[in-house]
Amino acid sequence: MFGPFVNDTEDPKKFAVWEPKVKVYREALAAGIKDEYKLPQELIPKDFDVGVDVTGIPAKVLTESELAITESSGCDLVVKIAAGELSAVEVFKAFAKRATIAHQLTNCAMQIFVDEGLMRAKELDAYYAKTGKTVGPLHGLPVSLKEHYNYKGKITHSGYVGYIDNVTENWSVAVEVLKEAGAVFYIRTTEPQSLMHLCSYNNITGACRNPWNTSLTPGGSSSGEGALAAMKGSVFGLGSDIGGSIRCPAAFCGVWGLRPTQKRLSMHNVTSCCGSKVQESVACVLGPLARSAEDLDLFMKASIVSEPWKKDACIIPLPWRTESVPSPKELTIAVCYDDGVVKPTAPIIRALKHAVSKLEASGVKVVEWKPIAVQKLVETCSAMYNADGNSSQKLALAASGEPLAPLTHVALSFGCGDDGVSVEKNQELNGIRDQGRQDYLSAMDAQGIDYILCPTYVSVAAKPDVIKYWGYTNLWNILDYPSVIFPTGLKVNPDLDVVDKSYKPRNEYEAYEHFLYTDPKDFINAPINLQLTGRRYFEEKLIKASQVIGEIIAQK
Amino acid sequence: MFGPFVNDTEDPKKFAVWEPKVKVYREALAAGIKDEYKLPQELIPKDFDVGVDVTGIPAKVLTESELAITESSGCDLVVKIAAGELSAVEVFKAFAKRATIAHQLTNCAMQIFVDEGLMRAKELDAYYAKTGKTVGPLHGLPVSLKEHYNYKGKITHSGYVGYIDNVTENWSVAVEVLKEAGAVFYIRTTEPQSLMHLCSYNNITGACRNPWNTSLTPGGSSSGEGALAAMKGSVFGLGSDIGGSIRCPAAFCGVWGLRPTQKRLSMHNVTSCCGSKVQESVACVLGPLARSAEDLDLFMKASIVSEPWKKDACIIPLPWRTESVPSPKELTIAVCYDDGVVKPTAPIIRALKHAVSKLEASGVKVVEWKPIAVQKLVETCSAMYNADGNSSQKLALAASGEPLAPLTHVALSFGCGDDGVSVEKNQELNGIRDQGRQDYLSAMDAQGIDYILCPTYVSVAAKPDVIKYWGYTNLWNILDYPSVIFPTGLKVNPDLDVVDKSYKPRNEYEAYEHFLYTDPKDFINAPINLQLTGRRYFEEKLIKASQVIGEIIAQK
Repeated sequence: MFGPFVNDTEDPKKFAVWEPKVKVYREALAAGIKDEYKLPQELIPKDFDVGVDVTGIPAKVLTESELAITESSGCDLVVKIAAGELSAVEVFKAFAKRATIAHQLTNCAMQIFVDEGLMRAKELDAYYAKTGKTVGPLHGLPVSLKEHYNYKGKITHSGYVGYIDNVTENWSVAVEVLKEAGAVFYIRTTEPQSLMHLCSYNNITGACRNPWNTSLTPGGSSSGEGALAAMKGSVFGLGSDIGGSIRCPAAFCGVWGLRPTQKRLSMHNVTSCCGSKVQESVACVLGPLARSAEDLDLFMKASIVSEPWKKDACIIPLPWRTESVPSPKELTIAVCYDDGVVKPTAPIIRALKHAVSKLEASGVKVVEWKPIAVQKLVETCSAMYNADGNSSQKLALAASGEPLAPLTHVALSFGCGDDGVSVEKNQELNGIRDQGRQDYLSAMDAQGIDYILCPTYVSVAAKPDVIKYWGYTNLWNILDYPSVIFPTGLKVNPDLDVVDKSYKPRNEYEAYEHFLYTDPKDFINAPINLQLTGRRYFEEKLIKASQVIGEIIAQK
Repeated sequence: MFGPFVNDTEDPKKFAVWEPKVKVYREALAAGIKDEYKLPQELIPKDFDVGVDVTGIPAKVLTESELAITESSGCDLVVKIAAGELSAVEVFKAFAKRATIAHQLTNCAMQIFVDEGLMRAKELDAYYAKTGKTVGPLHGLPVSLKEHYNYKGKITHSGYVGYIDNVTENWSVAVEVLKEAGAVFYIRTTEPQSLMHLCSYNNITGACRNPWNTSLTPGGSSSGEGALAAMKGSVFGLGSDIGGSIRCPAAFCGVWGLRPTQKRLSMHNVTSCCGSKVQESVACVLGPLARSAEDLDLFMKASIVSEPWKKDACIIPLPWRTESVPSPKELTIAVCYDDGVVKPTAPIIRALKHAVSKLEASGVKVVEWKPIAVQKLVETCSAMYNADGNSSQKLALAASGEPLAPLTHVALSFGCGDDGVSVEKNQELNGIRDQGRQDYLSAMDAQGIDYILCPTYVSVAAKPDVIKYWGYTNLWNILDYPSVIFPTGLKVNPDLDVVDKSYKPRNEYEAYEHFLYTDPKDFINAPINLQLTGRRYFEEKLIKASQVIGEIIAQK
């Protein structure tokens, strides 16, 4: 199930030298909380570990206008700003305030720099006042960024203490594209050590909390983006996903997320342990976390209309294609209740059944999906992550000698762990991957379906630092089929989502993972999201399909 | 310069068991030459090694109508067939005759199956007679196929004796696409052992000859396609290219060739030593060899309009985009006279200067290209070929114990040879590759150019079994920039193309490769082609630019 792994990078003496730098970094983060945005003490829960829902707190401190702005979609806001009904500064201030509140409740930020954002919003307003035009399709939208995207002139550490001195001299191409489209930046969000947890802990800023139930994880590795989106602290944000890192936090935090097909958006100038090395067997992909299908579309269209292939030679010049929202009767989708490796828990099964019943009632044709070679593909994917025998990860960890988080232990044990594989074996794994891509294409054609509805994870938001099985998400990473995560409107209800204690696990993965959901009461209020997967490179159609499917399922 | 390599696959005893199978295969090839297409003995040169130009021989045996048909372009032929002016059978018979003649003069075929082609042509005519319609954009066009594309029900050995029993059960997707578009098949063409020579020798059918000077190689690895295209034995043919294998034979044989960007055309179901393993650091790419830019366009458009991404999950759904031929004044191109590693020989330099002078006179703006990190990129590419320590190649060779061709020795010594590399190192090589792609993009932008005009190889068609330096072609494989090869209309002229014997080589590659062109008289009549490279995924524009550039340069 897991490969060998020796914890040989921890070095307490060395780490002692680095701890003061961590302290300075944290102080800078704390200093980013402007006095006027500080929450009154009585609004901050005394004990987050008991599981508090903090999503209602912003409404207690925002003005009516701030509330209205931050509850709006990106699509609405750009129209209003472009029409002169709202200024970029007004919009910015509302989101800056709400994001700062979100951070105080969830620890979702790694850097907050409201003054810089304000300056940018003022520039945009000045440009608009002077020309009557917007600078681009995202003019005045406050956008959040996962920390590991290079930000010119700021530290980019990618969750490694050893990179805490790394002030990046360039912009990530994807960030630059958003900036040129008119986005306003003010917050960079948290991610776990090594970026390889579906969870959030790192040694720099600690753990992030799930806003719906603060005893649970927001998921990861785009942890802060998930929490911030649920708190409505940005219009949308940039995540990244090599095993579920956009989709897991989107699902756990009850928001929308898209993992596009590789090579549509640029990952140029992103800091990771790989440095200039390129692991391409399973590619890390950039994508948005947002609050609606329409905003996923807005993000993608704005990113691709800029023709990123002119800036990054790895990007495919596939324009953003305009698609209309399909009518339910045009859709045939397959539903996957169980991947054959780890059976989903009660709330997920309930949501799937609920979804099918709603979809069928709306005229969508639903067929059952038979999982294909899931365990083989998921294990192949795991072996690809560590094909280099953890050499890159260990170098990054050893730089500071920082302690390993529990889930870093797990991640470094994936696949063949420290043993890695030979190039010949890696080429075999690539062959399994490509055959999988082909088999899934054939199966979709055979069933006449364009979309597969499935869980995002075995269960809802988990307790911190326990998730080991990534199969419901990283299956689509190895296959490189794009997926949208969307809320069903359902939440965990202990009366309905009871545990079948007599269930006999079929394998070791299931014996561990299925039973992480033991006492439903621990998961109260956790959102139940689902995943819709489409064909490679057809994000446009996938988003439109997810929009109608999401609407049908979430109907009261 | 080259890595270690142990010749441990040859096994004469084992090979003795395989030799009778080779004999049977050759007999089948000989039997494919229909009596009515047999050349009279007096037209077959007594000694090919003295260097005969055989390109004029078909005209001596073809009827006027056969000659007119086979001299026509594919674009003209499809129009005439669709208009009912020519039947598929008429067209087929002319090409079948000419191809069979070509084979007798150059040994370009591995399988000839004229009766099957005729049956298909008859079916197409019957369909047309019944419906008044064509089956697709290539209705009735005789198309040749490099041997390693799977052909349902036929042996596909990919140049390895050990695969000579391999009757493929499926079609290559790319071949199926052409078939559905209306192409007629009748000949599969030769390739070297291991597919990794820019030359032609294999142990099954021996060497192929260059039709312009039979003492020279047609190049490789799409050797037979090069020779056949020069002999006009098909309208166009399918080659493949991982280091120059379309472009080198196109250049040596004086025809057109295109190596497209990867993932636009399907390489699914192609036989190679890799089997189900996937080496993706430098991808093997499919493309046409043809006799004009218009026919390259026809091939690509017909292949892509079929939406091959519906059949092969690895293909990008980038439609074929209609582009117009640019006017000379719209073009700025860079010219590369020397890659800084191996200086081209006199005929190549003459052709480049001739080209620049013609282009400038026509209003094309020409700037000089400064080569970037060529040796590093070329050596990185070489290391990628053998990253697995030759394990796949050796398994395929050991299957029969066949003797190693001299250039297989060279190919197995590329990069790190038998040592191969680790996955970590392979990821480093990928990083060098991606940085190169980026650096070339930036340099093209900085100079305001979309195209680079450069040699295809250090020299013109070489003597058999000597080429070791692939840098002028495989630079573009590692960078994955598309290239078109086109004729300049020039040929080697010993009076003009003299050797500078005082030239001091700058390195070992040059000391060897530059001086393979020693006595210009040996290369009499060898065509001088050039290479035009464009931006990734913009084959449409590249072909149109090559059309106008090719016309300007070849003007008398």
